[in-house]
Order: sequence, then C-alpha cells, then structure tokens
Amino acid sequence: MSKLQGAFLIGQSGGPTAVINASCYGAIKTALENENITAVYGAAHGIKGVLNDELWDLSQEDPNELALLPYTPSSFLGSVRYKIADPAVDDTDYKRLLAIFQKYNIRYFFYNGGNDSMDTCNKISKYMQSVGYDCRIAGIPKTIDNDLAITDHCPGYPSAAKYIATTLMEVYLDATVYDKGQITIIEIMGRNAGWLTAAASLASLKGCGPDLVYLPEVSFSMDQFLNKVEELYKAKGSVIVAVSEGIKDANGTYISEYASDLASNTDAFGHKQMGGLASILSSIVKNRTNAKVRGIELSLLQRCASHVASATDIDEALTVGAETVKRAVDGKSDFMLGFKRLSDKPYQIELIDIPLSEVANFEKKIPLSWIKPDGAGMNEEFYAYALPLIQGETAQMKEDGLPRFAKIKKVPAQI
Amino acid sequence: MSKLQGAFLIGQSGGPTAVINASCYGAIKTALENENITAVYGAAHGIKGVLNDELWDLSQEDPNELALLPYTPSSFLGSVRYKIADPAVDDTDYKRLLAIFQKYNIRYFFYNGGNDSMDTCNKISKYMQSVGYDCRIAGIPKTIDNDLAITDHCPGYPSAAKYIATTLMEVYLDATVYDKGQITIIEIMGRNAGWLTAAASLASLKGCGPDLVYLPEVSFSMDQFLNKVEELYKAKGSVIVAVSEGIKDANGTYISEYASDLASNTDAFGHKQMGGLASILSSIVKNRTNAKVRGIELSLLQRCASHVASATDIDEALTVGAETVKRAVDGKSDFMLGFKRLSDKPYQIELIDIPLSEVANFEKKIPLSWIKPDGAGMNEEFYAYALPLIQGETAQMKEDGLPRFAKIKKVPAQI
Repeated sequence: MSKLQGAFLIGQSGGPTAVINASCYGAIKTALENENITAVYGAAHGIKGVLNDELWDLSQEDPNELALLPYTPSSFLGSVRYKIADPAVDDTDYKRLLAIFQKYNIRYFFYNGGNDSMDTCNKISKYMQSVGYDCRIAGIPKTIDNDLAITDHCPGYPSAAKYIATTLMEVYLDATVYDKGQITIIEIMGRNAGWLTAAASLASLKGCGPDLVYLPEVSFSMDQFLNKVEELYKAKGSVIVAVSEGIKDANGTYISEYASDLASNTDAFGHKQMGGLASILSSIVKNRTNAKVRGIELSLLQRCASHVASATDIDEALTVGAETVKRAVDGKSDFMLGFKRLSDKPYQIELIDIPLSEVANFEKKIPLSWIKPDGAGMNEEFYAYALPLIQGETAQMKEDGLPRFAKIKKVPAQI
Repeated sequence: MSKLQGAFLIGQSGGPTAVINASCYGAIKTALENENITAVYGAAHGIKGVLNDELWDLSQEDPNELALLPYTPSSFLGSVRYKIADPAVDDTDYKRLLAIFQKYNIRYFFYNGGNDSMDTCNKISKYMQSVGYDCRIAGIPKTIDNDLAITDHCPGYPSAAKYIATTLMEVYLDATVYDKGQITIIEIMGRNAGWLTAAASLASLKGCGPDLVYLPEVSFSMDQFLNKVEELYKAKGSVIVAVSEGIKDANGTYISEYASDLASNTDAFGHKQMGGLASILSSIVKNRTNAKVRGIELSLLQRCASHVASATDIDEALTVGAETVKRAVDGKSDFMLGFKRLSDKPYQIELIDIPLSEVANFEKKIPLSWIKPDGAGMNEEFYAYALPLIQGETAQMKEDGLPRFAKIKKVPAQI
C-alpha cells in the first residue's frame, strides 16, 4: 500500500492510568521520527479538543521532557468523558471533526483509551470511510479495568494490579499487628469486572493476602458474607476482606447503593452521606461482630501509582503505541492492537490486530472458573495469568526525593 | 562504668511504621554481636508479651531474614496498646515484669515506640531503679506522627511524609485531568499534630500540591473553608484539599465528630455510619458547590508504605537502634536517643541523649510560624525542615514483582 503523507493527531480519553502516557509517548516518538508524518499534534481533552480546535504542536516540546512521559501518570493531554452521537442520528460532531482534519491535513488519528473511547474511535473511523476522507485511524488501548474484549490484557492494568497487591501486603502487616482482632475491608475499583480486586489475591502468594475476596462476577449474599466474616473473626482475630466496588446482590442491586436509598442517611448538615461501599460494609460488619472494623477505599490512588508501576506494563505500553503508528503508516487502519498470550512461563505475547468494531462496547470479565467459591479468592489460573504482568520495577526518575514528571509546554498548533 | 553482662529484651508498641523494624534490627544486630549480651529476646506484642512470658529467642533466626527487617513494615514482634498503671497506685504489673527480668536475667531492656511507649518505658525504668534491679533501659523512638518532644524528628515520619507527598503528586495529576472541575478532599492522619498533613505540601514544590491545607494546630472554621473552596472552584475548576483527621473548630470539637453526633446518620440497616472526615467534608462541600467531589482517606496506607520508604529514614532508624544498644552496654540507662539538626543544607544531624522523663507524654506540634494563614499551606521553613528527610529510595528486595519481607520463625525463648 502507498505511504500516506500528512499530519498525526492523538487524543487521550477516559480514566487515567499509570502508563497511558507511555503508550502515547510510544506513538508520538514514532510519529516524530517518521518521514511520512508532516506534523505531530495532541488534542486537549480528547475528542473535545478536536471539536474545539484545541491542538498542541508536540514537535515544539523538549524531547528530554517527552522521554519522561512513560513515568508520568494520568493523561498529559487531558482527558474527557464525551459520548459522541450516532452519525445516522446527528452528524454535527463528525462534520466538525472532518473540517478540523482537513484544516490540519490530519491523515493519522489515534485515540488512546478504554471501552467508550474505542466506541468513539470506531464511529469516527467508519464516518471518515463513509465520506471518503483518506486517513488511518486506530485505537490504542488503556484501562486499569482490564475489560477490553479479545486482548489478553490492557496496558494500565498490570501497574494497578502491582500497586494493589503491594498495598495489600503492607496493609496485611499493619492490620494484623495487634493482639486484639480487627476486621479490615478494602474497597477496590471495578464496576462490572473484578480484575483489579482479583489482583489483591496476588498478595496471598506471599502469605499477606486477604481472607475473603468478592468480585462483581459473582452475586453477593450479605448473609453469607457476614457469616463468613464472623466465623473467621472468631477463629483468627484478624480478618481482611477485598471487595470490588461493583458487587451486586441477587437482584442486581449494587451493594454500594444500599445506603443511598435511605433518606435518613444524612450527615450533621442534613446532606446525604457520600460514604462508599467500604464504609457501608464496615458499618454492617461492626454491628454484627462488635469488632474493631476499618474500611479502606483505595480510590484514585490505584489508578495513577506510577511510583510502583510494572516495568512490563510500561514496556508493553510503549511498544503498543509505537507499533500502532508503524502499522498505520504501513497502510493499516480501523484497528486496535491487542495482546495474544503465547505462554505464561516464560511469559510470551504477540501483538494482534483487532478490528475496532469488535472491541468497541464489549466488556471482558474474569472467567468464572478462575474464581473460588464463597469469597475464597482466586485460583492458580488467575495467578498464572496475572503474575507475569506485574514483573519489573519502574525506572522513574526522582528529584528531591519525589517523582520527576514530564514538563510539557503545550504550544498551540499553528498552520 | 563496668560492663553489665546479661540478656537483651526488646519490644515494639503503638502504631506501626515503615521503619520501626529497621530500628529494631539495628538494636538486635548490635546485641547479637556484643559479647556482654548473653541472649537476645523479643517480646510478643510489646509489654504484654513480657507480662505473659511470651518471649522469642532471636538468635534462632536466619541472619539473612533478619537483614530484610529494615525493608519490612509494621512491627514484626507484634504491637500493643496497653496503658501500664502508676506503680504508686498498682504495682502488680511491675512485680511481674521484675520476675520475668529475673527469670531470663534480662539486663538490657529496650522499648521501640512513640509517646505512650516512652511513658511505659520511663515508668519501668524508674521502677527498676527503685527496687535496685541492675539493668539498662532505653526507649527507641518511632512514630509517623513525628510528635515526640525534643528530638528534631522521629523515625517513621520521613517515610510516611515521602509516601504522602508522592501520592499527592499522583492524585493531583489524576484529579485535574478532566475538562470538568472536581474538588478532591484528602484526609491524612494526625490527631493533634499536623506533621503528616503538612507533608502533602511538599508536592507543591513540584507544582502538584494541594490548594488548601488544614492542620490541627489551627482552629478550623467551616465557613471560611467553604468560602475558600467555592472561590477556588469558580476560579480554577479543580481544587485539592489536604486535611488532617484532627482538625477542630473554635470550640475544640473535632470536625470528624460532627456526623456521629446525629442519630439520623445511619445506613440502610439502621447502623451508625462510620464515614470519616473526608466523607463528612465531601458531603458538605458537595451540597455547597454542587461540584463533583471526591473524598479520599489515606488510612493505613500511609503508615506502612515500605515500598516508597525514605532511605534517609531507614538509615537513621538503623543507626538509632544500633547506637542505643551500644550506649547502654557502655553504661547509659533511662534515655531515648533523638536527633539534633545541625544543618538543613547540607543535611546534618547528631544523636542526642534525652532522659526518658523529658520525652514521655509530651506532644510536639508544628511551629505556628511555619503555617501560612487561611489554609494556604506551609512556608519555606517547613520545606527546609522536611525535604532532607524524604531523600533517597529504599533498597527493598523484590520477589515475583512484589516486596520480599522478612520471614521470622518466632522460636519461643527457653532457659
């Protein structure tokens, strides 16, 4: 296929991760070095930046600062949660996108994100095909949720998993230190898929794992949970529970919504309380056992903990970003690169092309066969899957004892 | 002074830290190598282990495993919160302690802890003097709260400060990533002293710090706080607040107790909600601004984050532990070693002997002159103080991509 000459544009979208900037940097660096690419732009806040004509000229940045991006968490271009319309219903946004593409002669467009971002990317790709605008479009995967279809795993998940397992080990030593018992309930992200909460189990391989693990894949019985916790508390004194924010009861109601259903659940000022699942479960467990109970929500900390990122994850993110651009220059479009697992031990993967339409809007969950019954955690198949992903330590540069993040000037694009 | 021959006993007490095992290891290693020390014991769960005659013979441990203790968080001997009586009122515990000391011929007793532990250590020291039992007794400082009197700082604080500042930088990048605004409220430990919350300000040196910082040293006005937050939210969109769990209003009431005063603050099961300060403030701020608000409680994670411990802290903890034992063997008793700051830049300290009676039960707070008014954070004096403490990265060993903690057999002591 002929080499297409023109400008490159990349955007980032959805929740941040520790390595989304690594994949973005892989793409940008490859673009900056490619003779077919005439300009390298970044969109401020994803697709909104394109619609608003807010592009930055990344060739104006200091290459030494760009080189720190793989160790700088969150989305350096800014992120967005914007649901683009179905073009058959409303093509306003698409016409605007086309105008911007034409204005800057954008012939390479990459969108770095998760499920919803792949849907956006897919729609844009199909629209540009339909109007005959010649450009190469690809998604670059990221999500700590690890729920993209077909690919073995998603960049961002390994680092979040490493953070969660490391933190669990540390909390285990803390929460079991006293002679008096304590029940510790740790809430981990994952609305529909339990990949992140499952990662807590990796701490069990080191003897510092949770006693109970609850994932959204399995419906949650409050009675069984309370019986289990009480039984363990009486037997062991210290109990540690890892629980996914997305657990639901047999009726499909999120347990985290139990509290917000009640008007009486207000604070001193008459406002509705915002306590999350860990707080709700802690109250219930406290009432049942009268034990000392601590609820811990890992919250945003698990998304962007670049200081303990997985080197495997950083390397893979860089490779995926770079390779996506190479394949696009070589003629490929309308795809997302994913991983196919060849072997767990030694860990071997290969990159695979996945059509955007096959990855958009599907959610991959944990196989039920990897989950032990009654909250007992994960089995060997999950360990074999997850352990290779968290290998290797980040080479993050430090300055004054703190992370040295990339400093980006964000120079507006001019034509 | 003559060299006293006999057994060594150490206990750990109070809240865990990332480096309490480093100071303990410094003491143990020195004791194992000293010819005047005839046996090296550890007490299970601090003073309770002594009272219960639960001692472990640490000479039975693998030296290679003991050498991992500086990188293993929490208190490996187990901890306790036990308030020992005033011996003038009730000397039961002291008689029991004396009997155990005599049983094992303990002539060196070290207690590794914070404020309350130094009180315990002081009382035991005075009692043993009063009954004429010849032994050397010393406290070995630790506390993330950094509130021990006289000493410049306490082992454990630098590592917690490094974790907090690193985490703030990461959360900053995450919480400011969207084009829509967000108010993020981060709750940090410190019931009476704001040292830990002040550490959040270190992230400001890297352009990733909180907009507002509230410490227990300054009384908290809800009105002023809400006005500030609202003003910043309107001006900037994203606002990050670091707040100490121990902030109090002008009447001395903890803000964290505002919610628990109300019976209506119950969950779906009619139980009292356990949400902490971050959750309460989030509700109030949400109601005032209608912004997206996230409350984050760093909780136990800030106490034991050995994976991002300060090398300066580890080194100092090791030195304090070792030097305390050396000075005791040389004849000193009834003391705790502390640090005297000689210079900020270059950072220089010297060890100082502090009589136990001068350190027990006093709480050191942040000088008010280091705190900017109206929640605006810390000034240069705090930065000059804190920055040297967080320098250097841990040499923690990894195994399977996770921390490799010390494996301790805990062999019961026999005589």
